[in-house]
Amino acid sequence: MATVTLNVEGMSCGHCVNSVEGAMKQLGATGQVDLANKQVTVTYDESQITLDAVKEAIEDQGYDVV
Amino acid sequence: MATVTLNVEGMSCGHCVNSVEGAMKQLGATGQVDLANKQVTVTYDESQITLDAVKEAIEDQGYDVV
Repeated sequence: MATVTLNVEGMSCGHCVNSVEGAMKQLGATGQVDLANKQVTVTYDESQITLDAVKEAIEDQGYDVV
Repeated sequence: MATVTLNVEGMSCGHCVNSVEGAMKQLGATGQVDLANKQVTVTYDESQITLDAVKEAIEDQGYDVV
């Protein structure tokens, strides 16, 4: 398993937390959003999921991984 | 029909817009959120809906009518 912390712009409220964490769940990963620090910590199986796929799933929700 | 513009704190993103405008729709009113100005303009039939009910529906979504 791999854990990465990504800097993500645009998350502003609880709905955004749900969107991002839900997208991680759908991907088969676990995401934890830190709104105050504009970060998402994602734990995923790197034999199943690429980091690019993680980033893309977050961006598909309308946020910028910076 | 009555139209009121309310000052509402805590709306930060498109999800918030959908929550508030959706709550107005469910109430039988029409809401339009102005995120930048932190305002919601609500048009409603005052013979059917009270202003208190409008405010309560917004607050039930987790926002403060100020």
